Amino acid sequence: MTIQVFGYPKSTFTLVIFHVLKELGLSYETVQPSSHEEIKTPEYLATKHPFGKIPYLDDDGFHIYESRAIARYLVNKYQGTKNSTVLIPSDVQKAALMEQFISVEISYYTSPLFKMLFELLMKKRLQGSEPDSKIVNEAREELETTLDVYEKLLEGKDYLTGEFSLADLLHIPLTFYAFNVGEGDLWNKRPNVSRWWKNITERESWKNMITEYNLTA
Amino acid sequence: MTIQVFGYPKSTFTLVIFHVLKELGLSYETVQPSSHEEIKTPEYLATKHPFGKIPYLDDDGFHIYESRAIARYLVNKYQGTKNSTVLIPSDVQKAALMEQFISVEISYYTSPLFKMLFELLMKKRLQGSEPDSKIVNEAREELETTLDVYEKLLEGKDYLTGEFSLADLLHIPLTFYAFNVGEGDLWNKRPNVSRWWKNITERESWKNMITEYNLTA
Ligand SMILES: N[C@@H](CCC(=O)N[C@@H](CS)C(=O)NCC(=O)O)C(=O)O
Ligand SMILES: N[C@@H](CCC(=O)N[C@@H](CS)C(=O)NCC(=O)O)C(=O)O
Repeated sequence: MTIQVFGYPKSTFTLVIFHVLKELGLSYETVQPSSHEEIKTPEYLATKHPFGKIPYLDDDGFHIYESRAIARYLVNKYQGTKNSTVLIPSDVQKAALMEQFISVEISYYTSPLFKMLFELLMKKRLQGSEPDSKIVNEAREELETTLDVYEKLLEGKDYLTGEFSLADLLHIPLTFYAFNVGEGDLWNKRPNVSRWWKNITERESWKNMITEYNLTA
Repeated sequence: MTIQVFGYPKSTFTLVIFHVLKELGLSYETVQPSSHEEIKTPEYLATKHPFGKIPYLDDDGFHIYESRAIARYLVNKYQGTKNSTVLIPSDVQKAALMEQFISVEISYYTSPLFKMLFELLMKKRLQGSEPDSKIVNEAREELETTLDVYEKLLEGKDYLTGEFSLADLLHIPLTFYAFNVGEGDLWNKRPNVSRWWKNITERESWKNMITEYNLTA
């Protein structure tokens, strides 16, 4: 039985999958696309990911794409089989709270953060142009507003729902890149947010990710 | 025991909740905000939705916000109690496939569709300005690309995963508005996509929604 992840460790979407696998104590193989062209071939579109993206998972013949779907699948199938880590709680109300924070993350956190990082990190490489400082500032301001709410929501709590969950994990890769480009102060200057960031990144699984994939802090 | 939805039927996010409730055979009460200001008051932010949005759910004292989290909560708690409708399958692989299509919907479908509808429907009301035809055209083109993939994925299938699920349901309100503003041809001109749209909107639950909330087709 082999779990195979098709992707590469520079991709935040792929990092999420590696991280979930590590949290659940599962071993896996990684297959890296040979080039950007490979994920746009008719064969790749027909058999791997119809929208031409990575990551993609092959679990002993079961194929699935889209990082969030892959993460949920791995939890539903393997949580509790190798260790006692709980990423999605079984209690209906606790699960609802976790889903609430996953939706918060998509709706108000990742969206401005991604916009900011696209300008600061990817625009040069992908489009050969400089960051648009107006877009960077707007995104940063939106993120400030969101982090002000997080600061309140995290009052007296170690993690978003109280206990570590998939909702916390999904925040990590993009935030890590934000620290990398020197924007860490957005998190550091808010005591609760900063404590939360420490709690989630000091877990063994993330420390292993940093070592194994040579992620520069 | 009362299920109370705080929202209003013009909001696509609220329509999703009403629709899930109807599919599951549940009765509910609706509370409409008296004004846009109401959802920005300190009291609303502190006790209902910290980001100042609707919808918001109160299930006999259990509070939850964010439409997708509310939808999942209702399914996890009530699916199978009033009727035999299955919105989230219990089989791990079937559930994974459904999650895959929910992520597809968020990533490639709703994002350009929302952009297009914002210009065509909401910009005038919210910002008092005319639609930017460049944005409309870009969004429409992105949507065409996505719908071409849907056309392939829906080959020989009645619904996205084969059976009706939450993944199909989440597509409905925004697509309904697209038909309303005269963009239905994007769906109609693709035989599989058009058949799928017919299948999901001819269910009793959606027909009841149209009647009850006076949604103009
Ligand atoms: N919604 C997808 C997004 C995946 C995604 O955008 N992956 C990027 C790599 S980080 C990609 O494949 N980009 C190639 C392209 O868009 O051409 C997911 O969550 O898995
Ligand atoms: N991510 C939220 C989005 C909800 C949302 O944007 N609701 C709109 C109404 S359709 C709203 O409350 N807008 C008021 C505002 O943003 O001020 C969800 O899925 O529930």
